[in-house]
Amino acid sequence: MAEFFNVLPPDEARDLLLGHIEPLPDSDLMPTHEALGRVTFEPVHAPGPLPAFRRSTMDGYAVRAGDTHGAGENLPALLSVVGEVKMGQPADIIVGVGESALVHTGGMIPDSADAVVPVEFTQPVEWSSAHAAISEIEVYRPVAAGQNVIQIGEDVTRGALILPRGALVRPQDVGGLLAFGIVELKVTRRPLVAILATGDEVVPPEGAPGVGQVRDINSYTVSSQCLLAGGIPCRLGIIPDDFEALRRATAAALAENDMVVISAGSSVSARDMTVDVIKGLGEPGVLLHGVATRPGKPTIVGAVGGKPILGLPGNPVSAMVQFDMFGPPAIGRLQGMSHTPVRNRVWATLTLNVPSESGREDYIPARLEQTDAGLTATPVFGKSNLIFTLIQTDGLIKVPLNRSGLTAGSLVEVIPF
Amino acid sequence: MAEFFNVLPPDEARDLLLGHIEPLPDSDLMPTHEALGRVTFEPVHAPGPLPAFRRSTMDGYAVRAGDTHGAGENLPALLSVVGEVKMGQPADIIVGVGESALVHTGGMIPDSADAVVPVEFTQPVEWSSAHAAISEIEVYRPVAAGQNVIQIGEDVTRGALILPRGALVRPQDVGGLLAFGIVELKVTRRPLVAILATGDEVVPPEGAPGVGQVRDINSYTVSSQCLLAGGIPCRLGIIPDDFEALRRATAAALAENDMVVISAGSSVSARDMTVDVIKGLGEPGVLLHGVATRPGKPTIVGAVGGKPILGLPGNPVSAMVQFDMFGPPAIGRLQGMSHTPVRNRVWATLTLNVPSESGREDYIPARLEQTDAGLTATPVFGKSNLIFTLIQTDGLIKVPLNRSGLTAGSLVEVIPF
Repeated sequence: MAEFFNVLPPDEARDLLLGHIEPLPDSDLMPTHEALGRVTFEPVHAPGPLPAFRRSTMDGYAVRAGDTHGAGENLPALLSVVGEVKMGQPADIIVGVGESALVHTGGMIPDSADAVVPVEFTQPVEWSSAHAAISEIEVYRPVAAGQNVIQIGEDVTRGALILPRGALVRPQDVGGLLAFGIVELKVTRRPLVAILATGDEVVPPEGAPGVGQVRDINSYTVSSQCLLAGGIPCRLGIIPDDFEALRRATAAALAENDMVVISAGSSVSARDMTVDVIKGLGEPGVLLHGVATRPGKPTIVGAVGGKPILGLPGNPVSAMVQFDMFGPPAIGRLQGMSHTPVRNRVWATLTLNVPSESGREDYIPARLEQTDAGLTATPVFGKSNLIFTLIQTDGLIKVPLNRSGLTAGSLVEVIPF
Repeated sequence: MAEFFNVLPPDEARDLLLGHIEPLPDSDLMPTHEALGRVTFEPVHAPGPLPAFRRSTMDGYAVRAGDTHGAGENLPALLSVVGEVKMGQPADIIVGVGESALVHTGGMIPDSADAVVPVEFTQPVEWSSAHAAISEIEVYRPVAAGQNVIQIGEDVTRGALILPRGALVRPQDVGGLLAFGIVELKVTRRPLVAILATGDEVVPPEGAPGVGQVRDINSYTVSSQCLLAGGIPCRLGIIPDDFEALRRATAAALAENDMVVISAGSSVSARDMTVDVIKGLGEPGVLLHGVATRPGKPTIVGAVGGKPILGLPGNPVSAMVQFDMFGPPAIGRLQGMSHTPVRNRVWATLTLNVPSESGREDYIPARLEQTDAGLTATPVFGKSNLIFTLIQTDGLIKVPLNRSGLTAGSLVEVIPF
């Protein structure tokens, strides 16, 4: 049965899908330093201020700022040095009027001081043999109260939100949490993503295909993409081109996983069968019968009970481009991410004209090259979107929806791929 | 001992370092589908052609192209249908003059046919009850020989280079290798990266810092960055600010790892000590005493016996920005990567003026926001490059070397971070 062909532009299609996904209600408690790449399950607040004590931003002398007022090259301020604040030690030195204490970058400021004079604006004038240390300095520049000092809570105040729920944990987040001694973190469970291949011509890669058979590529490209996006791929093998077999396999996959991806076969009949299978799984079922892109227009976008379902075209390039469009945002939303991260891209000068059709987003594989005139992008045209064009290239040139092509010499957007 | 301060711009500094790195001579043989993110140890060539048989790119009828010449809406060509090529089956049908065979997308083309007429340019005119199939069609458009057919070897010819040595294995590469039945791949060993923290004020994150002490952040941010770059981080703990202790720990780290990163402490004396330690390890030792960037100027770049050594500033933001500049390319080169991948970035409209100094590359943390007018970047200025500024932001605005600042409203480069 041919379906009414319901097609949306990619951004609207993605928003439609994301609106039908329920974030997972399960969390893992794990060591913070192992939570890299995971997504926070709940907001995290600062248990105390950071820094917890006043710190110097320079190597220099902790002073009372008033003692340096009016100091200059011709009229230096003369201060005695009453001690050194050792790194990692309490600054239990009293800095009186006309006095100073040697401090190091990151070291604590004595309570009685309120600024730091950088060492390069001072000169030693007296040496104490008894203490084996400089005992008097000249200061050549004035400092204001608070200058070169990080105040208590200046980085983070007690109770401040460090990370909201749904935040991807990056290296700096690991560091920031550990700075507070937060050594365990609750993150959302990684989504299980079932991946089914279909096609009577498809055989596992380790076997020797007979005449007319090809090895399964899509299960492996998609599970690789899924891994990079933070999901746990579950390859469920190759299902015969048979409605009942596909229905049963997909229903079982949906019951045991958080997301289902079907590499839907290449022919129209295989695609129609996938549509019918998804429709039978539950509500809302099929959301969209196509996406206004090339490659990949006949992508089926669906959801059942808050779980995303994708029916990808059988062509390996189309399958990858389409999974890239929907898979990572869906895996992010399952983990409670509130927004889709901004897509990385590079800008490069196009070396050849690229034809396209208005009303469709085109993605054309391209080689990137660093030249003296900057980065260039050379499109690689393959009549059938063969997998090797993606292996030989570095990214996809994006031709926006409303453009009927791109001109050689213009600056174009390339999505690293 | 203060050193002659030898400073280079970041690109030159990175090239200098890469020139002193020896790729690792060791490989791992592993299942191809687990090699994602690894780097090829040797070139891989195609053991056969891809595709291995002639395939249809459409649902339609395999024909002799000559039989369709002159066909049109008003004068269709009449062809008998002599059979159907089933998916995954040899196309052992003889298509004679005036004949055709039903084929599906991806299916095999009979030897005697040379083109495919898409189904939408045909109409059935006779039905065979005996075969329960269409037995005659009208063709409304001519096809040329080879049209809608992928020839043997059109994707890849036998013996062609699939992947060179030193290629990062991406999802499409996994798929492409498996398409040939290459189920095992030789990849370069993942580099072991020793990470040492220094500083008498630094304590492990799980402990309660005393007055004047801070928790170790840099070991964990850098090991997270190292993991994302493909290295295996080995955190060797916190070394006291003592030359002999640091020398011994660094020499041991260098002997047992492929790369060494020292979080060099914040003060000038800690930095000078790190320089002296690296100088004593072997040739060439210290390559550079600084990089013309902010944050992070006092970064020490070195190499000994083909192994890269980095001395990072103690400030957590500087340490991360500097590791990002040198760490991933160094880890890539250790794995034999021949060039540094193009850095991902986004372009956004700046919302505030950003001052800078010419002759220095500045990196300013920024919040990205998707607005109706496009992506905007709002710089977050922190006087001391506090870790929380990196947690609250999405990337770093790059102020190029030769610019004395950036103006609000201009389009700027933001490195996702």
